[in-house]
Amino acid sequence: METVVMKFGGTSVATPEKIIGVAKRAIAEKEKGKRVVIVVSAMGKTTDTLLGLAAEISAEPPKREMDMLLATGEQVTISLLAMAFKQLGHEAVSFTGWQAGIETESVPRNARIEQIHTERLEAVLDSGFIAVVAGFQGVDRIGNITTLGRGGSDTTAVALAAALKAEKCDIYTDVDGVYTSDPRFVGGARKLEQISYDEMLELANLGAGVLHPRAVEFAKNNNVPLTVRASYSDEPGTIIQEVVTVEKNLIVRGVAFEPGIARVTVTYNKPFNGSLANIFMTLAENHIDVDIIVQSISEEFQPSVSFSIKEDSLEEVRRVLDVNKETIGFMSTDFEVGLAKVSIVGSGMVSNPGVAARMFDILRQSEIPVKMVSTSEIKISVVVPGGDMEKSANALHEAYGLG
Amino acid sequence: METVVMKFGGTSVATPEKIIGVAKRAIAEKEKGKRVVIVVSAMGKTTDTLLGLAAEISAEPPKREMDMLLATGEQVTISLLAMAFKQLGHEAVSFTGWQAGIETESVPRNARIEQIHTERLEAVLDSGFIAVVAGFQGVDRIGNITTLGRGGSDTTAVALAAALKAEKCDIYTDVDGVYTSDPRFVGGARKLEQISYDEMLELANLGAGVLHPRAVEFAKNNNVPLTVRASYSDEPGTIIQEVVTVEKNLIVRGVAFEPGIARVTVTYNKPFNGSLANIFMTLAENHIDVDIIVQSISEEFQPSVSFSIKEDSLEEVRRVLDVNKETIGFMSTDFEVGLAKVSIVGSGMVSNPGVAARMFDILRQSEIPVKMVSTSEIKISVVVPGGDMEKSANALHEAYGLG
Repeated sequence: METVVMKFGGTSVATPEKIIGVAKRAIAEKEKGKRVVIVVSAMGKTTDTLLGLAAEISAEPPKREMDMLLATGEQVTISLLAMAFKQLGHEAVSFTGWQAGIETESVPRNARIEQIHTERLEAVLDSGFIAVVAGFQGVDRIGNITTLGRGGSDTTAVALAAALKAEKCDIYTDVDGVYTSDPRFVGGARKLEQISYDEMLELANLGAGVLHPRAVEFAKNNNVPLTVRASYSDEPGTIIQEVVTVEKNLIVRGVAFEPGIARVTVTYNKPFNGSLANIFMTLAENHIDVDIIVQSISEEFQPSVSFSIKEDSLEEVRRVLDVNKETIGFMSTDFEVGLAKVSIVGSGMVSNPGVAARMFDILRQSEIPVKMVSTSEIKISVVVPGGDMEKSANALHEAYGLG
Repeated sequence: METVVMKFGGTSVATPEKIIGVAKRAIAEKEKGKRVVIVVSAMGKTTDTLLGLAAEISAEPPKREMDMLLATGEQVTISLLAMAFKQLGHEAVSFTGWQAGIETESVPRNARIEQIHTERLEAVLDSGFIAVVAGFQGVDRIGNITTLGRGGSDTTAVALAAALKAEKCDIYTDVDGVYTSDPRFVGGARKLEQISYDEMLELANLGAGVLHPRAVEFAKNNNVPLTVRASYSDEPGTIIQEVVTVEKNLIVRGVAFEPGIARVTVTYNKPFNGSLANIFMTLAENHIDVDIIVQSISEEFQPSVSFSIKEDSLEEVRRVLDVNKETIGFMSTDFEVGLAKVSIVGSGMVSNPGVAARMFDILRQSEIPVKMVSTSEIKISVVVPGGDMEKSANALHEAYGLG
């Protein structure tokens, strides 16, 4: 019997009525003769309420205890959803992360799934029950409750789909698919029928916001077909899978953008060759995500490296660099905030030279200064002033004929 | 190093401020050089809110899922309390029921603790951390979250005190000790300094409401000294332990009472001797608590048995009896609601004949009809009309010189 995994986010389960709606939607799949696993997030604003309670007690609560606290959010949803199934005449069993066998590393608030022990889930599914699983959470080897960080529920859904060898994993969300760009800011943005994992990965990484990159990566590595679709309609959504049969010819498939970027430049001691590695090792040890890294060494200048981070981690980056100044061995740092990243993505790029040159030309025509550049085989990103983000995205979207 | 277990109920942890207050109270014990375990309930009205959510989905939600839902209440409290300790400069680790190794039978909403695997708790305590444990919950052998039913958090505290061989178990509550009767209804009620387990057990069973009988029984069986004391003051409270050195001479130590009682009378087939056992086996299998049982067989009448139950289980009792009418083998049933139980308790009774006679005489003088009677070595209970409950309690409290 085929297995389907369905994932519903917080807004889709925000009230008891909506939970009943989700149950009905899942029952339709069940009645097609599928084994059904549903992954859900915390109801609506529950997480905010819990964060508010914690903030009343401590400005910097211990991360392990934050996980303990936040994990209750999804536990409420799964129990209510299981009750809804029973009420609608179907048998369901709810599972917390640890009950679903989701074992993670011991990194509170940002744990990665290490393995999934599916025995109990399989047994319940084989008995004809619907399995309702708490997203976003797991358990480490010594029994601490962990949470998976941003996009955690998507990751739970994909990881379960992979572990259960599911036919598909449907991510129900508040948009009806993946677009060529964000329709709220780019007038001509258009929904894509299909997209490859790599393209989605770049779009997800670039702030398209529909799916978390960890989830997409997990899907790609395990070849799980993913669908992003609306929880409020029966529209087919966008399928994310390895072979994209339609629209192959377009070089650029989407334009993504993300505000709130800061640039950090570190100038370091010429003779100390370890500095570059030290900087990024130190940041990684402090769980700081660095995005674009640009380095260019010349004989004339002190060596320096620039990198982009999210603005809201700037304080932490400054603190970490200061504390480790001696170990890292750097001379000075320089920061710039209020930036944005704009990127074009498309797997056709790899065989089409001149895409970057064209991009820079389009931006120059719009008089947009380019602060940083980063390229991969299927993506080119530029960092521009925040105020130019929307203009850049629209100009690129139009120039590449995506509308 | 001595271990103390401290238990705080829902009203004591109703707000973040109160949680910080609880933490301060526990830190005082810790600074006396103790190993400290704190057991807490869900915050204030959390349980009611969760019940409300469930009620919006189903009038009769599956019990397993109710446990899943309700267990989140204490999980929120333990994480916040652990954060409060950290904020106050002390190290603490929170534990859900399953993390604390509290293994229960597989009876949702009313599970009994079967054993406690203390390895992890011991390790954390030995490292100098304060352990914060979720009351009211455990896990069954196959990993389902269970809750312990009424008085569950008291039971958790006492069971942990027994398992950890604690020096004492302090139950912090919204009253400052055990009284000779309920001061809200009996003017002269007075706080007791000490009371024996058996006396407390009878008082607890009889609706004194301070401590759940399961907790007292657990304490008695494991010889755990219990203290009932106020969470809002430093008054010493009432100590519950085996040897009571003070006030030995009083025959009656307390007057307890409880409204909301119903009487059920079942008349059964004379030749079928199994009927009596069948009735109570059937009720027990359906997890219905029966209190007083009265039977008197004479040659003249059909055999019948009367028993008292809580009014709110009457519907269920009627349903269970109806469904099992043939198996049980009874003829007719008769019900009376709106009754109350009033009891006198004291370990001195056993060596003082005539206590019951005196009790009936006092009630007769107050013109209170006695519907049922039950006696034990240290307790006499009568069932009276609900409207006479308070009058009965006051008359008995005064007549036995408890004021």
